[in-house]
Order: sequence, then structure tokens, then C-alpha cells
Amino acid sequence: MEKNFVVGVDIGGQTTKIGVVDRKGNIIKQTVINSKYGANEALVFMSALCNTIRELASEVGLENIQGIGIGAPNGNYYTGTIEDAANLEWGKGRTVPLAETVSRELGIAVTVTNDANAAAVGEMTYGAAKGMKNFIMITLGTGVGSGIVINGDVVYGHDGFAGELGHTCAVRENGRSCGCGKSGCLEAYASAIGVARTAKEWLEKSSEPSLLREVENISSKEVYEAAVKGDKLALEIFDYTGRMLGRSFADFVAFSAPQAIVLFGGLARAGEFIFKPAKEEMEANLISIWKGKVELIPSALKESDAAILGASALAW
Amino acid sequence: MEKNFVVGVDIGGQTTKIGVVDRKGNIIKQTVINSKYGANEALVFMSALCNTIRELASEVGLENIQGIGIGAPNGNYYTGTIEDAANLEWGKGRTVPLAETVSRELGIAVTVTNDANAAAVGEMTYGAAKGMKNFIMITLGTGVGSGIVINGDVVYGHDGFAGELGHTCAVRENGRSCGCGKSGCLEAYASAIGVARTAKEWLEKSSEPSLLREVENISSKEVYEAAVKGDKLALEIFDYTGRMLGRSFADFVAFSAPQAIVLFGGLARAGEFIFKPAKEEMEANLISIWKGKVELIPSALKESDAAILGASALAW
Repeated sequence: MEKNFVVGVDIGGQTTKIGVVDRKGNIIKQTVINSKYGANEALVFMSALCNTIRELASEVGLENIQGIGIGAPNGNYYTGTIEDAANLEWGKGRTVPLAETVSRELGIAVTVTNDANAAAVGEMTYGAAKGMKNFIMITLGTGVGSGIVINGDVVYGHDGFAGELGHTCAVRENGRSCGCGKSGCLEAYASAIGVARTAKEWLEKSSEPSLLREVENISSKEVYEAAVKGDKLALEIFDYTGRMLGRSFADFVAFSAPQAIVLFGGLARAGEFIFKPAKEEMEANLISIWKGKVELIPSALKESDAAILGASALAW
Repeated sequence: MEKNFVVGVDIGGQTTKIGVVDRKGNIIKQTVINSKYGANEALVFMSALCNTIRELASEVGLENIQGIGIGAPNGNYYTGTIEDAANLEWGKGRTVPLAETVSRELGIAVTVTNDANAAAVGEMTYGAAKGMKNFIMITLGTGVGSGIVINGDVVYGHDGFAGELGHTCAVRENGRSCGCGKSGCLEAYASAIGVARTAKEWLEKSSEPSLLREVENISSKEVYEAAVKGDKLALEIFDYTGRMLGRSFADFVAFSAPQAIVLFGGLARAGEFIFKPAKEEMEANLISIWKGKVELIPSALKESDAAILGASALAW
């Protein structure tokens, strides 16, 4: 029998968000728990997670929960595990059987994937990609994540880890080092951290006056604020970042011919500062059959809700 | 009722190959007709095609043909049309309703796609990708084509044209001009024509002795023959070509996490000259989760049969 609610869980490096969601995408109840547990405390974390779900669901009744969707770093859809998640002390260098453990504890089906794939499902179920069968979700946060939807299904690939577009090559020669161990990855340029790196590099290289020279520890937020005030260097940094994204997007289009690319996350909120150069550079690098045909659109999910909604949508 | 034969058709710029194929992938009968018709002779070509299919199928009986699969330049799977095919006089700047016309004339279902997608289906049905659900077929001919299979299905994308990996960017700055109008495309480096261009460029730039200096009009064939004889420059050309492929392959893996990349076509027959550097460079550019896990394998289809087999496999 079909049930009326699902639970969405978003496991981040610091905190885990949990929410009960109805069929229309309303978050009925939500809360946040700590994700920071020690190397041998995966079970302690999962126990806390299960108890919180029990509590949160008690109002609608645990028996009315259709399923639980979890977005987690290195979450594997096929196996339901977290595999070697560097930013979780209890997930580093090991495989945590998340779906199996939670599902046995609560007696509810559990689906796991990574956060960007969860965001893509959320966008398709409740957001800007509603009704689309082919699109690519790009999440611009501290890193660059991606969720690829083809023919209405998220692409998981042979091993469950498909869609690491943040680690495709943006700069072949002398590229910036990336957290993944390679160099020149898109993520090293087009993430929030990438924007801050560009700012620091450019401030050192030139003597151009800029509001950013007064900032002590530059993050993408300060670059955005300076851009809003018309600061030339800050505007150039966004232009550069958008162009880096756009030329990579052209390659992504050549792969899966999506109807749209949806941008989500902090940098996407910079609006035209990012969208205009990204769109221009994507168009300039598309082959003729796709010119003017691929939309570049912002996510329609409220950022504070998106993680829970995305994960929850997996459970329908 | 299931029937025992299909027809495979491969439309090339010069000739069109047609074959009747049984369930095991044996080509029972085959022939070749001319593809070169004038700008207003699309119907004349399709009439010749239909008559040849009738004749060829007469032995097993047209009523025993399950379907007809056609691989064609710019063949669109969704619409069954050829759209603006530059290398066919009768297909240039127009849309030819190939599937509809042939299907109405013969009373048999017709499926159309491009040649690289057809090759991927052939490889999956009869070749090296038998049993694989996630792989990427790369065809190394005069151009670089690709067919992407995810979850057992060819990726057609929103518009039917997905999988143009030959036109992803291999060289960002000062790249070679490509036939598509862009510059720096993988195809400009890793196709047969790309190999010949590398040879000509390098012979001009250096004064290194090479067997290739004696060749008047260098094609990839002469480069291969020189490499077999141990010619240093020719070996370096293949090494360079393989590396260009390999670093692009790493990006393709980040997209769809395939089990294997299958290489087909003239250059793929250069064996270790191409496979060794390609594999090395791919490995060097993969993020850790995929290192050592993605196979790079040659097609298992006989080149003379592959086009017909691939197209025919669409019809099952």
C-alpha cells in the first residue's frame, strides 16, 4: 500500500539534516543532528540517526513512512554504503553499510546516493527540472558536484559513482592542484574555494585597486559582495569563473545532449555574474546542432530545504 | 510473432552496405550500393535502397524480416530522420524522413541512428561488450565518433544526438581547427586525419630523420607502417595520439563510470601503439575510485562486418 510520507536525510561533514516530507514536497517536520563522531563510532552515529527519525516520524506514525532517502558523501546507490568518505571521521578509509543498518533498525526501505545525485532527484521531483527527462545538475558549493539525469533516471554507472564532473579537466597544463590529488579539475576553479583562490592569485599578480584588498581572509562571499558594489576585479573573477564553467558545460552537452543544465548552490545565487559568462562561453563552444538549444537555469529549490527534499525524493 | 532475420544498413558518404543477419549475428547475404546521389535525389536513393533490401531478403522471405536497422550520418533515433548530413549531397541542409519512407515502402519497422551508436549496439549484441550494461564505444576513423551505453541503453539525450565525444575539447588554447567549426576538438588530434596532421606538423617543426620524410602524401597508414619498422618519430606520433585519447577518456569515465571503453576502427588496429599510451594517460588522470578499474579494450567485431552488424542489432 502506498504511504503518504518519506524521510529525507542529508549527511554533511558537520551536521546531518533530517526531515519528514509529504507527497507535495512540503517538509512537515525537520531537525539537525551532529555528524561528527569518531573513527569507530559509525554505529553510534547511525543509532542517533535512527532514534531521531523515530522521534521525528512519531507525529505522522512510523508506519506511514514509505521510505528513507539519504544523501551522503560517497554514498553508493547500488550498495547502499558510504565508501571512504574523507570528510567523515567515521567514514574514512572504510565502507559503512548505511542502508542495511538503518533499514534493519527501522524496518523501512532505505535508498542512499551522494548529495549531488539527491539534489538532481529533488530538482526533477519538486524543482526547476520538473517534467524533464534529460538534464544535468551542477552543485556549486565548497566543491563542484553533479547529478546527471538521462531518460528520467539518475546515471549511476557501472559502480554507482558516475557523475563526478567537478573532477573533469578544465585546465590541461599547469592547472591548480585539486583536493582529489589531480590538477586542473573544474572544481579547483569553479567552486566557492576556487573563486577565493582566483581572488588571492589575482590580487597577488596585479596591483589593480580593489575592495578585496581590504579583506583579510577572502571567501567567495566577499568576492560576491564586492561585485555587487561594482568592484572591477571582483566582477572579472566571476566572469572568469563563469567562463570556466561554460566551456566545461559545452563538453557535458556533447556527452548527454541534455535539455538543460541546472545550477544549484552558493555560487549559483550570484545570478547573472555567473550565468551570463557561463552561457556565453557554453554557446561559443557548442557544436552547431546544440547552439541556442540548451537552457542554463537556476535551481528552483530553496537552499535550506533542497538537501532534505532531494534525499526524500529518492524514497518515493 | 518473432521473426528470425533482420536487415542492417550502413549509409556512408560513398557507399551503402546492406546485409541480412540472423539471430546469431551471421551475415547471411550482403551487398553494397552507391550512396552518391544529387541534391534532389533523396527519394531516388531510398528507392534504390528499398529495392536492394527486397532483393537481398527474397531468399529468406521479406515476411521473415523482424526489422531494419540503419546507421547513417546524423541519423536521429527519435525522429528516424537524417538531419543535415554534410557528407551526403542529398542530405545536406535538409531533413530526410528515412525511417518513415523505407518503413512505408516495405511494411517493416525501421530504426535509425548514427554509425557510432550502431557500432555500440553491435558491440553489445555480438562483440566485446556482450553482457556489459555500461560502456563507451569510441570509433577512430577519419573522425572520432562515440556511442555511450548506460544501464544497457544507448544514450540519445534530449534531441537524439547525444554522444559527440569527438567534439569535446582536447586542447583549450590554440587548438587545431576542426571540421565542426570549433578548435581543439579531440577529433582534430585522435582521428586518422589527426594522426596525419600530427605527422605533417612534426616533420615541419623538427629535422629528426624519419621514414615518413620519404612519403609524399602522409596518411595514418604510412605512420603505422613506419611505426612497425621502429621509426622513432612515427612511434612518438602514436604515443602522442594515444595520450590525447587517454586524458579525454578519464573525463568520459568521470561522466558515466563505464565498465570499459571499447576502441573500434582503423587506429584501434594499431594495437599497443595506441592502447599503451592511452591506458597510461587515462590511469594518470582518473580519480582514485576508478584507478585500475576501467578496461580499455579493442572491438571484437570484424571491421568489414561491424557496420552492418551494428545497424542490424538495432532491429532486434
